[in-house]
Amino acid sequence: MRSITYLLGAVVALGSGAVYTAASGQANDKAATDFGVKLPAGYRDWKVISVAHEAGKNNDLRAVLGNDVALKTYREGKLPFPDGTIIARLAWVYTSSEENNKVFGQDQSFVAGAPINVQFMVKDSKKYASTGGWGFAQFKDGKPDEKALLNTCFPCHVPAKAADYLFTHYAP
Amino acid sequence: MRSITYLLGAVVALGSGAVYTAASGQANDKAATDFGVKLPAGYRDWKVISVAHEAGKNNDLRAVLGNDVALKTYREGKLPFPDGTIIARLAWVYTSSEENNKVFGQDQSFVAGAPINVQFMVKDSKKYASTGGWGFAQFKDGKPDEKALLNTCFPCHVPAKAADYLFTHYAP
Repeated sequence: MRSITYLLGAVVALGSGAVYTAASGQANDKAATDFGVKLPAGYRDWKVISVAHEAGKNNDLRAVLGNDVALKTYREGKLPFPDGTIIARLAWVYTSSEENNKVFGQDQSFVAGAPINVQFMVKDSKKYASTGGWGFAQFKDGKPDEKALLNTCFPCHVPAKAADYLFTHYAP
Repeated sequence: MRSITYLLGAVVALGSGAVYTAASGQANDKAATDFGVKLPAGYRDWKVISVAHEAGKNNDLRAVLGNDVALKTYREGKLPFPDGTIIARLAWVYTSSEENNKVFGQDQSFVAGAPINVQFMVKDSKKYASTGGWGFAQFKDGKPDEKALLNTCFPCHVPAKAADYLFTHYAP
């Protein structure tokens, strides 16, 4: 049970990078992991949905961005997200800022360090019908991360089914 | 010295809200605190410069956004920032996510809670010549925050003079 929880934990909330060794044969199912998502053009310029800090093994600061249809849906609160929605989760190493701490006079400032990876959820209710309508992808240095166990993503997002499988809430 | 450090710390890196009692008469100088900055239209849709977590009394998660000229300058790395640059710092209460922690199986997930305030730095090298070319503003619930001690902002940003008074680095 612990290993399953751990594997699920690896991808929650567009999670950790999912580079962990699979706990079951399912994770070696090549077809299941290949959603065929290409790196969306211009994603770094998308609008902010929210920000977060994952401690533990993730040890990151993250921004969750969305394309225009994602933002419109979040702001109107009308689920489900329509086809064409794309959510991007950018993660950077959680880094203590010596420069800022000097000015604050104490260790309190944590900033985005080196980029870790970028994950995407792409809505296509027909193509990805078996995973709640969402395709999953992970890129590192602009290339698909072949170490990512993408078939572990959807099971982890099931607890957020009422929010159309998204854990991230819009930050006003 | 401690009180000065504290006051400076309150506004570092588009800081804490600066609602602390002034340590000197300067903080009661009405004229000095009034940069006349109006809430920039559409700032919530601006692009991400970086994200951060300030612990301590700030206890926030923050996104630093910029208008187009800000992003262009950050990406090209050509200082100083031209007139018309606006930087926005949005802060939300640093909030443990019970929902996410359940899936991770441990307490590790911190998300953006209620909004705290939004701060701006506006570049106008003539109008704000005495403060490095930057005007400072703080809004709460969409209105100017009259508790903000804006004349404490610039002294705090002086250590970042080499970066045109900005502590935030662009997160790729």
